Amino acid sequence: MRGIERLEAFSDGVYAIAITLLVLEIRVPTGDAVAVGLARALGRLWPSFGAFLLSFVIIGIMWANHHNICRYIAHVNHTFVMLNLGLLLCTAFLPFPTAVLAAYLPTPDRTTATVFYGGALTLTAVFYNSLWRYAAAGRRLIKSDVDQHLIEGVTREYAFGPILYGIATLVALLNVWVSLGIHAGLAGLYLRPSKSRP
Amino acid sequence: MRGIERLEAFSDGVYAIAITLLVLEIRVPTGDAVAVGLARALGRLWPSFGAFLLSFVIIGIMWANHHNICRYIAHVNHTFVMLNLGLLLCTAFLPFPTAVLAAYLPTPDRTTATVFYGGALTLTAVFYNSLWRYAAAGRRLIKSDVDQHLIEGVTREYAFGPILYGIATLVALLNVWVSLGIHAGLAGLYLRPSKSRP
Amino acid sequence: MRGIERLEAFSDGVYAIAITLLVLEIRVPTGDAVAVGLARALGRLWPSFGAFLLSFVIIGIMWANHHNICRYIAHVNHTFVMLNLGLLLCTAFLPFPTAVLAAYLPTPDRTTATVFYGGALTLTAVFYNSLWRYAAAGRRLIKSDVDQHLIEGVTREYAFGPILYGIATLVALLNVWVSLGIHAGLAGLYLRPSKSRP
Amino acid sequence: MRGIERLEAFSDGVYAIAITLLVLEIRVPTGDAVAVGLARALGRLWPSFGAFLLSFVIIGIMWANHHNICRYIAHVNHTFVMLNLGLLLCTAFLPFPTAVLAAYLPTPDRTTATVFYGGALTLTAVFYNSLWRYAAAGRRLIKSDVDQHLIEGVTREYAFGPILYGIATLVALLNVWVSLGIHAGLAGLYLRPSKSRP
Repeated sequence: MRGIERLEAFSDGVYAIAITLLVLEIRVPTGDAVAVGLARALGRLWPSFGAFLLSFVIIGIMWANHHNICRYIAHVNHTFVMLNLGLLLCTAFLPFPTAVLAAYLPTPDRTTATVFYGGALTLTAVFYNSLWRYAAAGRRLIKSDVDQHLIEGVTREYAFGPILYGIATLVALLNVWVSLGIHAGLAGLYLRPSKSRP
Repeated sequence: MRGIERLEAFSDGVYAIAITLLVLEIRVPTGDAVAVGLARALGRLWPSFGAFLLSFVIIGIMWANHHNICRYIAHVNHTFVMLNLGLLLCTAFLPFPTAVLAAYLPTPDRTTATVFYGGALTLTAVFYNSLWRYAAAGRRLIKSDVDQHLIEGVTREYAFGPILYGIATLVALLNVWVSLGIHAGLAGLYLRPSKSRP
Repeated sequence: MRGIERLEAFSDGVYAIAITLLVLEIRVPTGDAVAVGLARALGRLWPSFGAFLLSFVIIGIMWANHHNICRYIAHVNHTFVMLNLGLLLCTAFLPFPTAVLAAYLPTPDRTTATVFYGGALTLTAVFYNSLWRYAAAGRRLIKSDVDQHLIEGVTREYAFGPILYGIATLVALLNVWVSLGIHAGLAGLYLRPSKSRP
Repeated sequence: MRGIERLEAFSDGVYAIAITLLVLEIRVPTGDAVAVGLARALGRLWPSFGAFLLSFVIIGIMWANHHNICRYIAHVNHTFVMLNLGLLLCTAFLPFPTAVLAAYLPTPDRTTATVFYGGALTLTAVFYNSLWRYAAAGRRLIKSDVDQHLIEGVTREYAFGPILYGIATLVALLNVWVSLGIHAGLAGLYLRPSKSRP
């Protein structure tokens, strides 16, 4: 068993890089796209700006949550490191579905793009829950001075993640704008302060 | 409430990555562009070099200022983390307006590009002030041993940021070179030592 | 002689960046590739997804191993820093053979691509062993309280790396799928807990 | 005045990112380039591999030197932070001249490319010396327990950097291969242990 410091440092690095790489998916308009003038051409990039904004906030929230989890962890073991690797894999992958969403939102393929995007978020939330539940089960890796009610409250709160992301993903089959609205709403909800996020 | 260490580490990561990604926007000249010889082709990249230089210095200054703010902060809460996320969002976005500026400075679309660039900087400065004012209001998150006069001095100094960036942005509507000169001048001013930056 | 902290921080940075850059090699399908619909076009990206997954897990395991090694190191010297630089060079290079593998797996050039990929992994394992053996020889850089049996066990375990990666590379000359299966199997083996990875 | 910790963390980030971004400049061969088979097409990428290798080692050495300098620094002031920003600017820029070198080494424009590359390294070495000399002058920022002979030895050793890089740059006007040989030789020299790098 060992401390969590270097795992946190490595995870912070992956979150910081994934969140910053998002901007590389916004392409400077060139060629025919600028025939209408640069101002309009930039305006037509709204799907890219929107996807950047949404994914940035979602990855930022994931980072804050990861940060929160780590505060309760006393030490890590091999399985925790591997589950964390799975979570980082999903996180580092997110710039790709973000780029797909930005590229296909203005096209008839928008349903596929939104389902793909929502699916990636759902999978990330599943890994997130696995990581936490593995640590929390029987207080396996939890610091001794953390209140059990707090642990259980976190478990309940995080359980909503995969469910809500999953619902938003399925809703995309009916209407992509409602689906994206749910994603934005979930992110917006989190931005507000609450008792569990002092 | 919790310490500021991991927020600083994550923010440092985003600043370091955003500042280093700027170079990816400078493209190696190929094809017809090199018909005049590589030396001339590199010379014609001056808008890219200039935009890289300006944005690098500006992001570097923002990092130094972020560093400065954090020195006065005793602890962070959810709202501070979320405001910081907004600031990082603006910062991580800056490579895009930088690339737009580099691409369109030699074209008639230079006004739009410079307004877009200045607007992004102004928005970043607004978030920057929000973050600081939230922490400083009623000494909400400030260390107990920091002098109140120092806090108020920082508040006054930072208030100039959005105003000056905003003016530079509006000036671009009249003349982009004067606007960029103001941006460069602001950065240059900061590079000098001063009493508030010991 | 000096502490290992900053070497660990720098190495963590390179691992975190290399692992996160892998996603940039997955390109959003455009043009003719999407004539079959976005869902199918994404499905045809399976070599990219597979190569991303495999390389992500392998680099993640390398990071965990690097982390493990560093726990036994008391201090570093110039040679250790330079061997570590060689290891980081191989690691930072891996996104390129990963991209080559993803691009050429569906083509007759898949043998070359898989040999190139396996060769890069083998070279990385060789540097990894050099780094460890240099530190462990005569307990040159090892903490005084680390059991010698543990050191020797690590040496024996790591010695399998270049051999197994080398075998997988040679097998690619006969059959690329068996070769990639060995790579995946090696990664899978590591993901399980074991006595040497508490 | 303040500690050097966060400046080191930020600088480490920029070094780690710049060194890892180098790989993005190696492009997967496509189209006509692979008509000769993938193995040959990869072989023809030797300028990219060579430039990657050379720049990786040079940036790695710069990082190790930066690390060394920081060990002697007791605290930092505004001017030191700004000089360090200049050094990081040069470092973060290096992937671009590396890509230019890789692209134009096999062409008649190789002289321009090599001079451009060498010039960037020379400028970096000049900033490096400025940073150190500013800190060392009158022991302005040096820890009180560091021997003055050591400081002067470091000053003398680093003074060779801009001179040797400058010579290599001028030699490129006569023969690019000799110039690149000098760059490789300088890097190779550093890789060996010495008394000043315990």
